Amino acid sequence: MYQDTIAAVSTAIGEGAIGIIRVSGPEAIEIVRKVFKPKYGKTIDQWQSHTLHLGTVIHPDQGQPIDEVLVAWMKGPKTFTTEDVAEFHCHGGSLPLRETLEAILRAGARLAEPGEFTRRAFLGGRLDLAQAEAIMEVIQSKTRDGLGAALSQLEGHLSKKIKEVSDRLLQVMAHLEALIDFPEEDLPELSDEKLRTDLEIIKNELIGLLQRAQTGKVLREGWKTVIIGRPNVGKSSLLNALLDEQRAIVTDIPGTTRDAIEEMIDLGGIPLRLIDTAGIRETADQVEKIGVEKTLHYMEKADLILFVLDGSEKVTAEEKELLSSLKNRPAIVLINKADLEERKIDQEEVKTITHQKPIISISAREAWGLEELSKVIRQFVYGDEKEKTASSLEYERLDLITQARHREAIERALQHIQQMIVDLELQTSPDFLTIDLRAAWEALGEITGHTVGEDVMDKIFSSFCIGK
Amino acid sequence: MYQDTIAAVSTAIGEGAIGIIRVSGPEAIEIVRKVFKPKYGKTIDQWQSHTLHLGTVIHPDQGQPIDEVLVAWMKGPKTFTTEDVAEFHCHGGSLPLRETLEAILRAGARLAEPGEFTRRAFLGGRLDLAQAEAIMEVIQSKTRDGLGAALSQLEGHLSKKIKEVSDRLLQVMAHLEALIDFPEEDLPELSDEKLRTDLEIIKNELIGLLQRAQTGKVLREGWKTVIIGRPNVGKSSLLNALLDEQRAIVTDIPGTTRDAIEEMIDLGGIPLRLIDTAGIRETADQVEKIGVEKTLHYMEKADLILFVLDGSEKVTAEEKELLSSLKNRPAIVLINKADLEERKIDQEEVKTITHQKPIISISAREAWGLEELSKVIRQFVYGDEKEKTASSLEYERLDLITQARHREAIERALQHIQQMIVDLELQTSPDFLTIDLRAAWEALGEITGHTVGEDVMDKIFSSFCIGK
Repeated sequence: MYQDTIAAVSTAIGEGAIGIIRVSGPEAIEIVRKVFKPKYGKTIDQWQSHTLHLGTVIHPDQGQPIDEVLVAWMKGPKTFTTEDVAEFHCHGGSLPLRETLEAILRAGARLAEPGEFTRRAFLGGRLDLAQAEAIMEVIQSKTRDGLGAALSQLEGHLSKKIKEVSDRLLQVMAHLEALIDFPEEDLPELSDEKLRTDLEIIKNELIGLLQRAQTGKVLREGWKTVIIGRPNVGKSSLLNALLDEQRAIVTDIPGTTRDAIEEMIDLGGIPLRLIDTAGIRETADQVEKIGVEKTLHYMEKADLILFVLDGSEKVTAEEKELLSSLKNRPAIVLINKADLEERKIDQEEVKTITHQKPIISISAREAWGLEELSKVIRQFVYGDEKEKTASSLEYERLDLITQARHREAIERALQHIQQMIVDLELQTSPDFLTIDLRAAWEALGEITGHTVGEDVMDKIFSSFCIGK
Repeated sequence: MYQDTIAAVSTAIGEGAIGIIRVSGPEAIEIVRKVFKPKYGKTIDQWQSHTLHLGTVIHPDQGQPIDEVLVAWMKGPKTFTTEDVAEFHCHGGSLPLRETLEAILRAGARLAEPGEFTRRAFLGGRLDLAQAEAIMEVIQSKTRDGLGAALSQLEGHLSKKIKEVSDRLLQVMAHLEALIDFPEEDLPELSDEKLRTDLEIIKNELIGLLQRAQTGKVLREGWKTVIIGRPNVGKSSLLNALLDEQRAIVTDIPGTTRDAIEEMIDLGGIPLRLIDTAGIRETADQVEKIGVEKTLHYMEKADLILFVLDGSEKVTAEEKELLSSLKNRPAIVLINKADLEERKIDQEEVKTITHQKPIISISAREAWGLEELSKVIRQFVYGDEKEKTASSLEYERLDLITQARHREAIERALQHIQQMIVDLELQTSPDFLTIDLRAAWEALGEITGHTVGEDVMDKIFSSFCIGK
């Protein structure tokens, strides 16, 4: 099916000590033979799988040496792509990599499309589609919790859950088919009641998955967070305190933090994507400048509102208006300057106005109260029962939905199941029920890729990086 | 001596399919044991050297999984550093790499200094200093010829040459010591004549190396090239033609050319570093705008002057003035618009004014004559006898001097040898001669690192990238 052999640079672009060119396909060893001269040891024919070999890349036509490299040889099917794989570990400059890649292409490989290695892993049965998508999530993860969720998906926890639900659907299908084939027989284990119960179980499982989709989305994309408040209540101090908090968590290892994520704050594993951060920094007088109406508009767009009040002053009329609008919004009220002695704010009043939104006393200047804030935000993300400490990467084998594509498929499956429950109530013929059941099963199959078309796959893999 | 184990990210920063963390030192396997859980196969104790193992990185304290990785295990001394080396091949995102590195550091490794892996390779005797320096040259090479020169140095061709000269010096030393120890004996093979001959041979070898230093410098740093000419003679067309020529040579492989070298043109393997390219592009009326004096100033700074004339017009007085100043300068005259029929320029006159500088007819618009230009430039770089075709990476095992540090050391060695020749003429005592001889020997030893201090090494390795 995949007769050609593909190659691409698989490490990041730029200057590094090592750069890798990955080659996968039936011709991999033949290409190694054409472009590689081992320095010592066994001849290429005698190589064991999963071994490393020092030597020189030689131009296949002209014979001149190009780079001194280590070749990693991995015989299929126990490889990433399930095909034969050779990796050339070159010196990590753009020219040695380019010249080596050119030699490999000249020796018969084809330049890989974005995501093509992973696509072969999928087609070879090493990964399902959800796992394949998780690879890019691991690479692009922004926080420890996000990495944990992506890794869990890569390890197949979501796929396993989807498979469980799909298997239940197949059982129901068998049940329906028995009813179709033997309509006259009255088998007690094939009652409508049993059918309804099974469908309710499936429905609840799908609803459960959807509920965790919001958490997954947050971990993947970050919580759109807006910091609201009058001038001088301490918005920029809060921002700086949050950034400092992050710096304390993120070990400052040279070479790993240089591509810091703009406006993305990792607060105890939860990524907060701050809206209009620049605005806060530059003007620091948001509400005054943009007015109540625009502030409301900002709040509209946010997944999380941090509303900052000055504890040493009374709540103004303008603030009251905004606070009362928090009612149905995901908001936390922060009473800043809690380190100052004279506290004039009426906390009970604020609680009443906001309809019992969480209120946290902080001192942005002293970076005090941020731990409590982090804890409350985690409750927002995981819900109460999943509250966790922020001290570590708490990896849980959650079957989180992190991708919109998956959520949409589950929603469709759920609609069909709900339709079935209604139809069952209406004594609809089993033949009709099977239509929805099949549609639900196919929707779930799109997640793991069992029922997905070439076009969808093209779309998914084209968003991968080259060499993956 | 090096009891601690070091670790660093060894691939370029950014998003890629694979990112490598390299760990080197006596504790490498212990660290693997602490942070890595193999997926299948042998236990870690049974690993053979130079093998690859799939598994999961686990946090050493908290036990949660961090990433799915391949570990490459290489037992010393047949490794890059000569120590035990473990490479973690992670997913190439900044977070998986950071978390894995953090786990490794927590398991007992220390973050490596820039160049520290290579420094250990040097101290372990795997590379001498010139070879170590060549690694960064390979990574940073800008053209095929530059890569070839760096690779040749990495393979030890320069080191071998230096060692040959050093060995000759040691023979002379033995000769001198015999004269000192047995001053009365008149051994014919220890004549002054023999001594002088040996020193002349050494002198000529050092001069030969210095002559090739200019070529090495060009390959490493590029030729500072200035394009000079009146308005509308075709300077920017020439620039574009040169850039197009390059594009034709440089295979446009996605992911390998994105960090294209600004203002650096690869003309058949020779890097031309264009001075004031932006100026040419923006104003295109250099001479007129900046005047003859400033143009002369530009020419002063250049390693190569490309002087463009319009073949369809007569040479102006201003041009004649500038052309006559080319006499002792590295210049090529280009007669542009050679595709136009009416040729008014007097080529013989130009030849006379410039004192026989090479003249090439080109058509920048038609990209015609560039091959000839490339050939003439190669003659400039390599000299006539080393003329090469531009069709391929012509890798020659040249002992090129590419580094200022090496050139300076050879110059010092040469001075001492020349002093010895003078002293020999003056019948100076052999004891005095040995002082210069030793100094020459030590100067050469600085290149290979046998006589170099910690401070020099610190300076050299600190310019390396992290993870190398």
